[in-house]
Amino acid sequence: MKIYDTKTAPTPRRVRIFLAEKNIPMEYVQVDLQKGENLSIEMRAKNPIGKIPILELDDGTCISESDAICQYFEALQPEPYLFGETPLQKAQIAMWSRQVEFYLFMQIGMCFQHTTGYFKDRMNPIKEYGIEAGINASKFLNVLNRQLEKSQFVAGDTFSIADITTMCSIDFGRVVDVRMKDEHSALQEWYKRVSARPSAKA
Amino acid sequence: MKIYDTKTAPTPRRVRIFLAEKNIPMEYVQVDLQKGENLSIEMRAKNPIGKIPILELDDGTCISESDAICQYFEALQPEPYLFGETPLQKAQIAMWSRQVEFYLFMQIGMCFQHTTGYFKDRMNPIKEYGIEAGINASKFLNVLNRQLEKSQFVAGDTFSIADITTMCSIDFGRVVDVRMKDEHSALQEWYKRVSARPSAKA
Repeated sequence: MKIYDTKTAPTPRRVRIFLAEKNIPMEYVQVDLQKGENLSIEMRAKNPIGKIPILELDDGTCISESDAICQYFEALQPEPYLFGETPLQKAQIAMWSRQVEFYLFMQIGMCFQHTTGYFKDRMNPIKEYGIEAGINASKFLNVLNRQLEKSQFVAGDTFSIADITTMCSIDFGRVVDVRMKDEHSALQEWYKRVSARPSAKA
Repeated sequence: MKIYDTKTAPTPRRVRIFLAEKNIPMEYVQVDLQKGENLSIEMRAKNPIGKIPILELDDGTCISESDAICQYFEALQPEPYLFGETPLQKAQIAMWSRQVEFYLFMQIGMCFQHTTGYFKDRMNPIKEYGIEAGINASKFLNVLNRQLEKSQFVAGDTFSIADITTMCSIDFGRVVDVRMKDEHSALQEWYKRVSARPSAKA
């Protein structure tokens, strides 16, 4: 089995960190997004949406979407639980994961795509929308800071996929100047802690 | 336990259908989105993001995000499996659910919010982006039609959360004129089949 990956992109990094936390070895095949290698006929056969990462199993079955790839490995090797163990933990981790994805990660992504023109050969960037998305992302850092004032990790008292997505979002955010502020002290303390985990280098 | 719901909104409908498929009874409390009842201090204490639906447990714990609420009940009462049973099924259902959410449901939502001005009291609608989102949504119907030419349901041979999200997206799409076309015959046949399930009326 192998994963089609782009070392510099924020989304596949989530999968690399997830697998490092589970101590699951993996073969990674690099795909150059800027050159559009992900849009080739060969890659479109693996994922019609043309996105990275893609997990290819030995029988040729392909799974795309980082979250889906992570869920596959969570089901195969549950421990350490990164999507939660009890029904309530699962729900709380799913809730925070999605809020971080929708209101931080995707907003930063939209800000990047619509303000930098990085993918302007394959989409129609609308600068006004990109700026709005960056503002939305910055606002969500306040929500996260309030949560981390009362919680050790993003979705409760254990490290989870929600922490992985949040850390990747914050690192990606620098590219479009979405940054933690001085008043985000709980968020900053958490960020220092999770970034020091060996998996963060994956 | 109860769910804060908005009968006319597409997102909480997913939860109602999910619970109907699992035959889990629920108390629903209606919240008027257009009047902004979801943004009250009381509701913000339940979900800082100000979105519906919210599941409130008897001890006051609140879970928001439809998918997280559904995952809670999937963990409590796995059968019938709507997020998949085996690791591969779980991954395939997660993959399709997310693609439908990101490239259909959310695009229709963005088209609605940015072209109609329905929430203009609480956001900055950017018409050009809304139109683009509608075009993206229409394109994804082609991907779905190709998938349903070879698969009985959206994510394989069993009914799943991916079917629920797709059906709710297609029904919501009418509001902004994102519709299945004549050439989408596999998609139309599937749509007829899933819409005839008793849960579709939930």
